[in-house]
Amino acid sequence: MANAKSWTLTDTKKNVWIEKVTFEEQELGLPNCSVSKINLRGGLQDGVDLIEVRNGDLSYSILPTRGMGIWKGRYREIPLGWESPVKGPVHPKFVNQLDRGGLGWLHGFDEWIVRCGLDSNGAPGGYTVLDNNGNPYSVNLTLHGKIANLPAHFVEVRSDPDTQLISVIGEVDESALFCPGLRLRTRVTSRAGSNSLTISDEIVNLKSVPSELELIYHCNFGGPFLEGGAQLVAPLVEVAPRDPRAAVGMSDFDKYLPPTPGYVEQVYFYDLAANSAGYTLGVLRNGSADKAAALRYKKSDLPCFTQWKNTAAESDGYVTGLEPGTNFPNSKSFERQKGRVVCLAPEESYRCELTIEVCDNRSQVAAIVAEIEQINKGTLRKVHQSPDPRFSPV
Amino acid sequence: MANAKSWTLTDTKKNVWIEKVTFEEQELGLPNCSVSKINLRGGLQDGVDLIEVRNGDLSYSILPTRGMGIWKGRYREIPLGWESPVKGPVHPKFVNQLDRGGLGWLHGFDEWIVRCGLDSNGAPGGYTVLDNNGNPYSVNLTLHGKIANLPAHFVEVRSDPDTQLISVIGEVDESALFCPGLRLRTRVTSRAGSNSLTISDEIVNLKSVPSELELIYHCNFGGPFLEGGAQLVAPLVEVAPRDPRAAVGMSDFDKYLPPTPGYVEQVYFYDLAANSAGYTLGVLRNGSADKAAALRYKKSDLPCFTQWKNTAAESDGYVTGLEPGTNFPNSKSFERQKGRVVCLAPEESYRCELTIEVCDNRSQVAAIVAEIEQINKGTLRKVHQSPDPRFSPV
Amino acid sequence: MANAKSWTLTDTKKNVWIEKVTFEEQELGLPNCSVSKINLRGGLQDGVDLIEVRNGDLSYSILPTRGMGIWKGRYREIPLGWESPVKGPVHPKFVNQLDRGGLGWLHGFDEWIVRCGLDSNGAPGGYTVLDNNGNPYSVNLTLHGKIANLPAHFVEVRSDPDTQLISVIGEVDESALFCPGLRLRTRVTSRAGSNSLTISDEIVNLKSVPSELELIYHCNFGGPFLEGGAQLVAPLVEVAPRDPRAAVGMSDFDKYLPPTPGYVEQVYFYDLAANSAGYTLGVLRNGSADKAAALRYKKSDLPCFTQWKNTAAESDGYVTGLEPGTNFPNSKSFERQKGRVVCLAPEESYRCELTIEVCDNRSQVAAIVAEIEQINKGTLRKVHQSPDPRFSPV
Repeated sequence: MANAKSWTLTDTKKNVWIEKVTFEEQELGLPNCSVSKINLRGGLQDGVDLIEVRNGDLSYSILPTRGMGIWKGRYREIPLGWESPVKGPVHPKFVNQLDRGGLGWLHGFDEWIVRCGLDSNGAPGGYTVLDNNGNPYSVNLTLHGKIANLPAHFVEVRSDPDTQLISVIGEVDESALFCPGLRLRTRVTSRAGSNSLTISDEIVNLKSVPSELELIYHCNFGGPFLEGGAQLVAPLVEVAPRDPRAAVGMSDFDKYLPPTPGYVEQVYFYDLAANSAGYTLGVLRNGSADKAAALRYKKSDLPCFTQWKNTAAESDGYVTGLEPGTNFPNSKSFERQKGRVVCLAPEESYRCELTIEVCDNRSQVAAIVAEIEQINKGTLRKVHQSPDPRFSPV
Repeated sequence: MANAKSWTLTDTKKNVWIEKVTFEEQELGLPNCSVSKINLRGGLQDGVDLIEVRNGDLSYSILPTRGMGIWKGRYREIPLGWESPVKGPVHPKFVNQLDRGGLGWLHGFDEWIVRCGLDSNGAPGGYTVLDNNGNPYSVNLTLHGKIANLPAHFVEVRSDPDTQLISVIGEVDESALFCPGLRLRTRVTSRAGSNSLTISDEIVNLKSVPSELELIYHCNFGGPFLEGGAQLVAPLVEVAPRDPRAAVGMSDFDKYLPPTPGYVEQVYFYDLAANSAGYTLGVLRNGSADKAAALRYKKSDLPCFTQWKNTAAESDGYVTGLEPGTNFPNSKSFERQKGRVVCLAPEESYRCELTIEVCDNRSQVAAIVAEIEQINKGTLRKVHQSPDPRFSPV
Repeated sequence: MANAKSWTLTDTKKNVWIEKVTFEEQELGLPNCSVSKINLRGGLQDGVDLIEVRNGDLSYSILPTRGMGIWKGRYREIPLGWESPVKGPVHPKFVNQLDRGGLGWLHGFDEWIVRCGLDSNGAPGGYTVLDNNGNPYSVNLTLHGKIANLPAHFVEVRSDPDTQLISVIGEVDESALFCPGLRLRTRVTSRAGSNSLTISDEIVNLKSVPSELELIYHCNFGGPFLEGGAQLVAPLVEVAPRDPRAAVGMSDFDKYLPPTPGYVEQVYFYDLAANSAGYTLGVLRNGSADKAAALRYKKSDLPCFTQWKNTAAESDGYVTGLEPGTNFPNSKSFERQKGRVVCLAPEESYRCELTIEVCDNRSQVAAIVAEIEQINKGTLRKVHQSPDPRFSPV
């Protein structure tokens, strides 16, 4: 830490906001690394802050204006992310989450990795909260909650030549009077030259009363990971289709189709096994098994894993989502009923960490698949052929 | 084309956005012409891009931030447009279209020419779409759709000394995952020294599935065209009042009152005749028949013509709308039932062109009225005294 | 006035907008005074204009972007305002007033003094208005109306060395076609070296038809005025609890608790007495009676006085609101029924003035309490133990 450096890009309390800056390898003290920040202008991206991190072979862009989501990435020549029908990044001022019956979030959705939460996520629906008079009243929660459309009030870049780590820190508040008061403190870190990044998050209940939390990391991939014959590999203990539409695909729930015009999404809910240290992983590998993207995390932090298959035509959004979370993306009222909504005591924090790793050759892919097989060894797999009432409303 | 030039003002894909620029006649290669672009600041206009085109006698301002609508114009000393109770141009960030029961669009409405669409336009109302699971579900469509509150991601200025044409090109996407995916490609052109501009639009279905389209050009005029004794002249085949309120005005449906405090709008739906080339026109001429504004277009492109009379007090919005469209501005569900919603196949385009022409002397006005009479010759006029179920819900 | 000066900071009609400026005492011609304007960037405050006025011992910040509300103040070492769970000032682009069943206003609420209005304020609820066809139709009004989330189109700073007054003028329109058309003209003035500021407002009905008006000055205080043992002192003629929750606190309705986790708000409605000149005042004094904040105004301008007690934990928003208004903050439909909605004839104005005064020593506090006792002398106090149907829906 002796040689660690840091630069504040945003600190609203002190009226600090840097419109444009680049830190090159000399300044960072990290070879082949750079961090640059710009404020985008024009179109739907007008006013969006974007931080581009390059650690050598891996680069990725972070969006302070969209809840510190990760817009796109690239590993060597491989793009990380997907091609959404909306071309962003989209400033929240152009997103009305109440639109289209609570599905307005979709108008801003084109990130590689986007958090869903913090007070709620999942399908829109009615929910009972307490009003300013302490009486229960019913509100309509919108798809995937607010965090992706809230701007960070604090952003910092750090580099440490000793550890070779480069980090972007951010703080985003989802808080108001008579509303939940949750703060996201996030750190996105990668090591110079590595093929991975790690998201370390802490969600603090700022209030003096208990608060609920739902958190999903919606990690989205198109090609070249997603393609005909691609497969989700994970140490599954149990899997169930969300609904009848998903049930019809059970014979190939872990396999992917090529772009298929008119394809209607299929969603599967998983319980995954963990290794002896408590870690699990989900891997999307391509058809020829020479590329893979892996998500690694502690099972106890993010006990629910959702696979979203949306192999529609390229122009309609050819994408799959691997979604570790505290819950499944059903309506919050259903998740609460199933005991999958986190409750934070006053000032309590929830911490979790998610590592995304990219494999770009056959041996790496084979190794990671072997790792999963090792975790899976001896585990009984339970594959439900129809929706299970523990996982989804039937 | 040999001497044609072009300048990109916005291209979000390449992170191009010009905050402020002026092209004078030398640069354009067009005498007495200029194009300038500014980004407005403060009040409701904060952040709105505005492009001012002057072709000599005619000038007009285009709003990339508001779907490439045309805010105001001027021909010699004559203002083109109207005085809305909201003083814009209004940035979409200040417009919540869901407000006031789906009438929030009105909070941004002060343009001379504004498109209503693209997925829907007309009165707010429920509509059935397919959700992400392919199941029908009901959404509330808001007044006049989204396009006027969406920013262009691409804007270009072109001039051609050979043809003497000056153009502003724009692209605006109304698109998102699980939502319609329509792209507006528009070109607003006028010839140096002319008294007209032409809007050439192409709407592309970006998706691999069929998409619906509704498109109305809401062209709005206050004084000096609109005044007591002003008249709508058009080669009408059929006209019907929208509702009982409009029906009471059938004796003078084509005539206008002076500003009338407390006046409640009257709306008439028209079927117009076309000339042998398929073109029709609608003309608003003033009381003394020495000024007129004409809309020319191909009848088959925009088969429906709506006249919106709102001759309220000046301070309440003294205005009439001449509105050629693919449909009438009823709720989309009614228009679909009547077969007036366009269906675009995957990647299919809808093209249409609208020319606005200004006459500022008696002989020009007489000539254009004669032109209409020529088209009308021999046409049977059917004037409905009460609402007709083909045109409006009765 | 001979030496008076003025500077325009915003005038959208003339495309005037100053991003950043400071006027020091020399320029103002006022000793120890300054006015500075900045445009905030980053986080929820991105794009908010803020004007900081310092008159010597008193300073305060005005928010043109939020309807000319007053964000925070400071008198000598004493902060004026409160600590909201949302850290603003919040740009309206991040506030969706329809959210949370019409309570979205709370997402922007952290001002010291914020206007609620102009067409409506108070609790959200259904209301019947006339649509564009002159027919009654039902809209959902949102909490506290629109004015706090509308930007000023005109802002001016004035100083007058002769009178020693420093003023900030602003104009904000709440207007659109087929909607109410109200203009706020406000002037916030203070004398160099004084301990007070005065808000002088005029609300004009811009339309040619009658318009309704509701206006409340929501003046909010945390510590050091608010603390355990603090008290609201006012010349009360009558007081009633809003609801059963408030009724349970009648024994101490005018006293305040220290921060109390889990406290649920209590609201009291007052009728106050006035002095012979027609003026009344409400005073919040701290526990040891050496600090007080006073609101002075003409009773006939703002006949209704509301006390909002929200002595929750600091982190949840420890705050009390003293709220003089034309009405009580019930739903507009209830207030209309009780005859407490102002009706403005075409072009008619409503004027009112509110002075906020800070006392920071025992003798000042004693004097202002004595002033209230003088007004109160001989007045019969009616203290309702339960909600009164004239004041709140029971």
